[in-house]
Amino acid sequence: MFVLGIDPGLSRCGYGCIGSHRSGPRVVALGVVRTASSTPLPERLAELQRELRALISELAPDVVAVERVFFQTNVRTAMSVGQASGLAMAEASVAGCEVVQYSPNEVKLAVAGDGRAGKPEMQRMVQVLLGLEAVPRPPDAADAAALALCHLAHAPMRRRVDAATARAIAR
Amino acid sequence: MFVLGIDPGLSRCGYGCIGSHRSGPRVVALGVVRTASSTPLPERLAELQRELRALISELAPDVVAVERVFFQTNVRTAMSVGQASGLAMAEASVAGCEVVQYSPNEVKLAVAGDGRAGKPEMQRMVQVLLGLEAVPRPPDAADAAALALCHLAHAPMRRRVDAATARAIAR
Repeated sequence: MFVLGIDPGLSRCGYGCIGSHRSGPRVVALGVVRTASSTPLPERLAELQRELRALISELAPDVVAVERVFFQTNVRTAMSVGQASGLAMAEASVAGCEVVQYSPNEVKLAVAGDGRAGKPEMQRMVQVLLGLEAVPRPPDAADAAALALCHLAHAPMRRRVDAATARAIAR
Repeated sequence: MFVLGIDPGLSRCGYGCIGSHRSGPRVVALGVVRTASSTPLPERLAELQRELRALISELAPDVVAVERVFFQTNVRTAMSVGQASGLAMAEASVAGCEVVQYSPNEVKLAVAGDGRAGKPEMQRMVQVLLGLEAVPRPPDAADAAALALCHLAHAPMRRRVDAATARAIAR
């Protein structure tokens, strides 16, 4: 299974595609899509849409995990983060991927075992879990990889819940 | 000139396309795109994207005017409104339209002469300005038509400012 994590943003949109193997999770792609703040907003959104579409088409993930955005966090950037998350989810859905959302706390809990883990701790955990030689950079790419790892941690439980629900309905 | 106003939203996204004629503005299309709240969010976003793309392709507006969204107004729906506005601006930009944003206050000031005009007053003004037999419904469609009318009111001044800027640069 391939999971593409997306940390939505307009200036920097992190992505991390992780493959699930018997030997453990492995990085397929890791990076950041940037748009210039000097470019008008509609063009930046169109550019981000084009890049996300190309990424999803190239990587062909089974699942796209997008960070669930909350307003309260940062009012100044919340609107552009919301716009970017909308584009990401629409593109993933059109491409036929399963789309899931996780809150920052869920990701921290799944990856670092602590819902209030700090940035350096999260980056270090992503490095260890993926067997990377260095801390993944930039931070947005590490955050996106953490989202994908969070889904891989949750996926077995999700499958069991779905199967139990299906059995209960069939009875 | 054709201006397509878009009042972004996920449950109801209003649109109003207005043509500018010597005899005054005239309605080309007026309506609402709805997505069901029972449908998962990523599918709703993909559906809205598809509908907006079809509308823009069919109506071929020169300009798309999207309401500028603020968080403070309604925290509960602000995220989905932000996501819808991102999709609208990206689609309009990809289609080669000029994309403009106006705040609710700018629209009220341009259409009703009062930045704090209420819903009924705005709907009545849209009806009068467009020579409609009845108040346009639903309200989201009227709001979208008001956005397009706001741009038509601002457009001559914008052109003069652009021309003056170009002359100043050429000197």
